[in-house]
Amino acid sequence: MIEIDRERLVRLMREQAAIGATEDGGLDRLALSDADREVRDWFLEKLDVAGLDVRIDEFGNTFGRLEGSDPNASTVLLGSHLDSQPNGGQYDGALGIVAALEFVLTLDERAITPNHPIEIVNWTNEEGSRFQPAMQGSGVWAGAHDIADEYEKADADGETVADELERIGYKGGAPASPQKEYEAYLELHVEQGPSLETAEADVGVVTGIVGFTWGEVTFTGEADHSGPTPMNHRSDALVAAADVITQVRRIPGTLGERTVGTVGYLDVDPNSVNVIPGEVRITWGFRDPDDAVVERAFETVVREAEHAASREGVDLEYEETMRAPSVEFADRCIDAVQSAADELEYDSKRLISGAGHDATHLASVTDASMVFAVSEGGKSHSPEEYTSWDDCYAAANTLANAAFQLATDRVARSDR
Amino acid sequence: MIEIDRERLVRLMREQAAIGATEDGGLDRLALSDADREVRDWFLEKLDVAGLDVRIDEFGNTFGRLEGSDPNASTVLLGSHLDSQPNGGQYDGALGIVAALEFVLTLDERAITPNHPIEIVNWTNEEGSRFQPAMQGSGVWAGAHDIADEYEKADADGETVADELERIGYKGGAPASPQKEYEAYLELHVEQGPSLETAEADVGVVTGIVGFTWGEVTFTGEADHSGPTPMNHRSDALVAAADVITQVRRIPGTLGERTVGTVGYLDVDPNSVNVIPGEVRITWGFRDPDDAVVERAFETVVREAEHAASREGVDLEYEETMRAPSVEFADRCIDAVQSAADELEYDSKRLISGAGHDATHLASVTDASMVFAVSEGGKSHSPEEYTSWDDCYAAANTLANAAFQLATDRVARSDR
Repeated sequence: MIEIDRERLVRLMREQAAIGATEDGGLDRLALSDADREVRDWFLEKLDVAGLDVRIDEFGNTFGRLEGSDPNASTVLLGSHLDSQPNGGQYDGALGIVAALEFVLTLDERAITPNHPIEIVNWTNEEGSRFQPAMQGSGVWAGAHDIADEYEKADADGETVADELERIGYKGGAPASPQKEYEAYLELHVEQGPSLETAEADVGVVTGIVGFTWGEVTFTGEADHSGPTPMNHRSDALVAAADVITQVRRIPGTLGERTVGTVGYLDVDPNSVNVIPGEVRITWGFRDPDDAVVERAFETVVREAEHAASREGVDLEYEETMRAPSVEFADRCIDAVQSAADELEYDSKRLISGAGHDATHLASVTDASMVFAVSEGGKSHSPEEYTSWDDCYAAANTLANAAFQLATDRVARSDR
Repeated sequence: MIEIDRERLVRLMREQAAIGATEDGGLDRLALSDADREVRDWFLEKLDVAGLDVRIDEFGNTFGRLEGSDPNASTVLLGSHLDSQPNGGQYDGALGIVAALEFVLTLDERAITPNHPIEIVNWTNEEGSRFQPAMQGSGVWAGAHDIADEYEKADADGETVADELERIGYKGGAPASPQKEYEAYLELHVEQGPSLETAEADVGVVTGIVGFTWGEVTFTGEADHSGPTPMNHRSDALVAAADVITQVRRIPGTLGERTVGTVGYLDVDPNSVNVIPGEVRITWGFRDPDDAVVERAFETVVREAEHAASREGVDLEYEETMRAPSVEFADRCIDAVQSAADELEYDSKRLISGAGHDATHLASVTDASMVFAVSEGGKSHSPEEYTSWDDCYAAANTLANAAFQLATDRVARSDR
């Protein structure tokens, strides 16, 4: 067992949280923004302090590497992301990076060299807020997306990923794909939901990630003056959209215990008190650990949207913008996390992640698992996101010991 | 009887429609914009051609005056507005100005001088799209609003009415209030609804204007990650808003044959596919000819909003931003319009306006009524707004003859 430095962990968390800080205690550190550049520069400094070799790939994914004592051993990779939502919290992503840094700083301080090399990585654009899709950097690296396509993705102002990577100086020279054999990938992240807190657990052992479907839907009715147009002459796009929002609230309860559904985005045209809405665009999203349930949610919401459009006499167009199957993590990595938590005498809870993470893509490259830190009140993607230093420490210590087990061959390797 | 010049009417309509024209055949001529200045300059030119004396008041309301043969006779006022919605039609407001111009041009051409003076007026900011409230210029002039308050109203960029009036050169020197005795006010406007077309009428005789209530409502829930937050841990502001939109669609049918209700505006924060909506702002509006029904609609929607907020566990704040009682026009003015339509052998339909107009405020100053032109498909506040030249002509001819009757004392004056 090793023990990380709690004070340094807190100091590192505070340092990163000052970069792109908002007045209400949150973060505004959108991918490839100036604040993202600043926190990447900070990350490079820390990699240097820890004595790691830096490698920046063509997509801005930034790695620090510590060689192991065995020149033939495969690499243990630890990582997460430093970008944030436009009004996000201090812990989402950053705690995973800081915990990985703290692990290698602890090894360095104690002059411990595991037989496996260790890499820590900051993935580009996990949030998918400025540029879609989310988990973009890890997706490119794992081969889920074509890098040429992703370079061309543009933000609302038309700036592309490629240009912004150049602008902030993080379009590196290394290939954005696995160039070594990897032993395992571990990621620490805040839970972003209430289940660890509800179970009064110290730390979460993550066994997989739910699958999901995202859709974009446009209702086209007829914009008209809200006064002289009788109710029976209307085709109100917002009325049809409202109907679907109500259905998205209802559908999860008809499908599964773990199913969730959300309409997070809505845009009205022309959006004036005195005009019947002519066009309304919404997104919907459903998640469940069972891919068959996700498929049923998708079929159900499409049927409900068609009914809603037909009732109101408006046109409907929809597109499934994303579908991700659920992920099951590798037993040996789950076991490494579980035994680390047990050895540290933390109360742990096994759970399936309700959010997507970079580990989704990494699980297609190597054995993977995640450590979850308690999210108080389950809040995330909000300045109210909060994890106590005790819980940050418990999760980071669990990550460090799970990684140490994997890097020192204390966990049997499965046949892959 | 007099007969206006159909070709000139069409030419005048085409001239004004070229100012602020959009590519799709609509108008973008927001109040006090450059396009508004340009169409006001055009209006001044036409007043000059017709030999009228120009008077611009402190609020930009612009009058042209033709003296009558009787120096003691009170003034017949005709008017409407030249501003438009951001993506409005060519007829809304402009047809009323053009018809009034065409009437005085016809008098001038035939060297007819009625015993009453005649004024025609372009009211500032009828639409209420850039600056609230709607019918602002006529409201100031009629004493419904304090001019100092209205000067300070700002658009979305923070520009005030006073500054923009100065900028476009239309802050005049005349007092923005009635300085003469008025005999009557007539306004021609497109119906903006389908009832004249449905009744196959040539022209509408307007007997009053519906009352209405407008409200602004904010639901505050909790922004949270849409993945890991279970359905029973959510307070989704958009779900509550959707519930209210559904109720606003339903309520009119429970109240009256003529009741309408609309949610025209909706804004979501943070508005991201992956975040549960934390705050949603909507407007609602209800109209009915019967003020008691408007009051019932208001009470009902407030109750429904409270239920919706309580069901979803979100907070609710609402404000009634506007309440206008219904207006009944003066019989003698209605009769003038009716007898003009009858003499011209037009099929006419008596109706109550479903939209507010400058005539709302004028009815508190003098006897008033309106002429409605057929709106094909009932479309308005949209580039698809359309009135055939036949229908423009029928309405303008009706206005001219009704005004001519009032200006030549062919209609008995009521005791006011």
